[in-house]
Amino acid sequence: MGYDCEFLTDCLGEGNVSFGESARESHAADWAADEAGTGVTPDAVVWPESTDDVSAVLEAANDRGVPVTPYAAGTSLEGNAVPEYAGISMDLTRMNDVLDVRPDDFQIDVQPGVMGTAIDDAVSGEGLFFPPLPSSGGISTIGGMIANDASGMQTVKYGEIADWVLELEAVLADGSVVTAGSKAVKTSSGYNLKELLVGSEGTLGVVTRATLELEGIPQQIRGGRAIFPTLDDAAEAVFDAVRSGVDVAKIELVDAISAEMANDYLGTDLPDAPMTFVEFHANHGVQEEIDFCRTIFESHDVERFELADEEAMDELWKARSELAFALQTWDPDLKPLHPGDVTVPISELPAIIRYAKELGAEHDKIVPCFGHAGDGNVHYTTLVDRDDPDDVAVGEQIYEAVVEKAIELGGTCTGEHGVGRGKRQYLELEHGADSVEAMRALKRALDPRDTLNPGKIFPETAKGERVQAEPTDD
Amino acid sequence: MGYDCEFLTDCLGEGNVSFGESARESHAADWAADEAGTGVTPDAVVWPESTDDVSAVLEAANDRGVPVTPYAAGTSLEGNAVPEYAGISMDLTRMNDVLDVRPDDFQIDVQPGVMGTAIDDAVSGEGLFFPPLPSSGGISTIGGMIANDASGMQTVKYGEIADWVLELEAVLADGSVVTAGSKAVKTSSGYNLKELLVGSEGTLGVVTRATLELEGIPQQIRGGRAIFPTLDDAAEAVFDAVRSGVDVAKIELVDAISAEMANDYLGTDLPDAPMTFVEFHANHGVQEEIDFCRTIFESHDVERFELADEEAMDELWKARSELAFALQTWDPDLKPLHPGDVTVPISELPAIIRYAKELGAEHDKIVPCFGHAGDGNVHYTTLVDRDDPDDVAVGEQIYEAVVEKAIELGGTCTGEHGVGRGKRQYLELEHGADSVEAMRALKRALDPRDTLNPGKIFPETAKGERVQAEPTDD
Repeated sequence: MGYDCEFLTDCLGEGNVSFGESARESHAADWAADEAGTGVTPDAVVWPESTDDVSAVLEAANDRGVPVTPYAAGTSLEGNAVPEYAGISMDLTRMNDVLDVRPDDFQIDVQPGVMGTAIDDAVSGEGLFFPPLPSSGGISTIGGMIANDASGMQTVKYGEIADWVLELEAVLADGSVVTAGSKAVKTSSGYNLKELLVGSEGTLGVVTRATLELEGIPQQIRGGRAIFPTLDDAAEAVFDAVRSGVDVAKIELVDAISAEMANDYLGTDLPDAPMTFVEFHANHGVQEEIDFCRTIFESHDVERFELADEEAMDELWKARSELAFALQTWDPDLKPLHPGDVTVPISELPAIIRYAKELGAEHDKIVPCFGHAGDGNVHYTTLVDRDDPDDVAVGEQIYEAVVEKAIELGGTCTGEHGVGRGKRQYLELEHGADSVEAMRALKRALDPRDTLNPGKIFPETAKGERVQAEPTDD
Repeated sequence: MGYDCEFLTDCLGEGNVSFGESARESHAADWAADEAGTGVTPDAVVWPESTDDVSAVLEAANDRGVPVTPYAAGTSLEGNAVPEYAGISMDLTRMNDVLDVRPDDFQIDVQPGVMGTAIDDAVSGEGLFFPPLPSSGGISTIGGMIANDASGMQTVKYGEIADWVLELEAVLADGSVVTAGSKAVKTSSGYNLKELLVGSEGTLGVVTRATLELEGIPQQIRGGRAIFPTLDDAAEAVFDAVRSGVDVAKIELVDAISAEMANDYLGTDLPDAPMTFVEFHANHGVQEEIDFCRTIFESHDVERFELADEEAMDELWKARSELAFALQTWDPDLKPLHPGDVTVPISELPAIIRYAKELGAEHDKIVPCFGHAGDGNVHYTTLVDRDDPDDVAVGEQIYEAVVEKAIELGGTCTGEHGVGRGKRQYLELEHGADSVEAMRALKRALDPRDTLNPGKIFPETAKGERVQAEPTDD
């Protein structure tokens, strides 16, 4: 054991603490379980059940110099929630209550361990929904989504998680409890602590309660798929639709190889071609909007633009949502390296996709591309034999080149998965040294002992550099 | 002279520095020009023309312990941009270029001194507009709007300024230049420095360039006014419309006395009754949305719901936009005390308006109420004889009581005007001591010498408490 964590039993009682190997090991890797997603096994796992529990653990850990890494569903892809330095894994899945629903204000109060789709379940009877849920909404928690500022298929119309968080209660590293934001829909009172906490990946505070904004379920929802002769046509069509102001609620791009993988995994019969999945939300005029979109797609040589009934739409969205799983299982030998995403200004969407595909062709590798194309967001990976170092090296090279290209095009190294351990090396390239230094100053200000999720986000916080006491033994 | 500011001539050359009394005095008060809005006369005024100029001044001032207060159009209402400690007033109005328009990406790059409506002028030819402009968009700068996280009549549909800022370049207190945010429409890369800078009122950095997002001008724009028997009916109607999900682009409440003042000031003939001004934006089905709104208004006993042609709408919005001026000039003896705003959850809108009006009646005072009601936002003031201390005291009492009530109802002490000097005393009541301490830690982290706009936002930063060197003489 690295850090002495016996004090946790005093904080929480035995039922909410484990020093057992299986509990500890299950908190050492995230869903990617690759190099970025595999951390150090924590010395203990705690399951707080209240804000007071979170505060008690943090205060005691901070006093003792013991790292605390918040964890929930473990569905991150960049190692965001796995320990870099052992210490305590704080599992928030037992704080999973819906606390209050206020339909008149379009608001819901939840604890961090509530699953994404449970929010929709709690409010759909009121005719409301939570628009920014990621594709993984059924298997990931709102706390994790807030920590990574997640977004999803409907972000193109409705925005990202940050846009739907009104107020947060969070515990800072020293155990103090802050409230950030307001239940009023707008405020210019003081610094925007709320937006600073959203996307800070548990390095600045642990969210213990969130007030989320909701939206009325639109009266008209229709969707379908459009098949294009080439991936470039599909990308140009998405760009043109967005540029032309088509009011689309989802506009996803799926390349031919990803469609094939989805067919293999789910038994669907998507055509072997690049395509977009689209959905339109409106109270009036949804058909006019679809017609508008069709006109634009036709100018990009769309082969078929087929509207689907509700059941067929569900199947399409399931295929899209489960692409990540499909990639993992498609080939027994070739596995996706670094399943991640970049985002660029929408005018550069065709360019970044062309670039990724050309790199794949150049190196004779399969590089599946899909994603929330309407936001300029591209998910890509390279299929490699993980036992072949040369293969992995080529995959790494493609991965890095696409990230660097996205930044060069005015984009970001991570659209929705956060920085964690996987994207640390790009932070300075994207933001510049002075901006990263400003971020680091904020970290030092709110967590001077580097207690919360140490080692994440910042490039030079390599192992052994924590300012505080190191583990008592190894 | 307080601080020795001769060094400024070396930084910028003589043409961009003034030590003259009239320049200095014109930078000592904002538009409210009341107790909150009247600061200390600065020792010098500078007009930087580039990021390098801003950086040079800040680096030199920070080294010397001289305060720098950013200033632009001077249209704040809470003293946000007037010096608390003399030193340098940094006037950004000469940095007023539109740098780039990228219609394909719905983006524009501007310098901070660009006037709000100049943004619309620059992009309307592309069929685009900048939705979150405040009513004062024609007389205030984008830099000031960003500093206060302003919002406006269309915020109910489109959100506030922060929602439309993609990327900022800003100079920190030590002269370092940071880039915050991304030109990609979504990112989860690093801490959200951008949202921290927006609304920080020039206390954390000076914005020198902003990339703003734009929206397509809707194909259908229609509006009108609805007259109600009582103010309570009008407020309940607004609440019901918002709760019911009416897709309204503007929904403003104006009470009878405010309408009378507008008539006096502008020569309009608004009826002597409480009313709402509404506007609907859509590409399809605007008439159906108007009909939906009418049904709801009818259930609240609306007397007349009259659609207006374009010319008549322009007159209505002019009346609404210029209410602040109308209040100032309506009575030669009675002047508005603390023209400010609060915002509450929409379900509490009727309650906060009733409360303000009841206080006015109780004290026999005129308390005009109007505002962006669809956001739960209320502008209110008390008309007082400023030469009568008892009258002023009653006005203060009403002002404070409404702010405290708004906070009690889950709202905020300032919806869109920032904290400045006028709302400092409510920061802790609204956010709690630990949250305010966290904000203060952020201020110390980015501006350890308290150079940038010292004395603002935080309640206990009273005069004489700056940690750095005090003025050389007084």
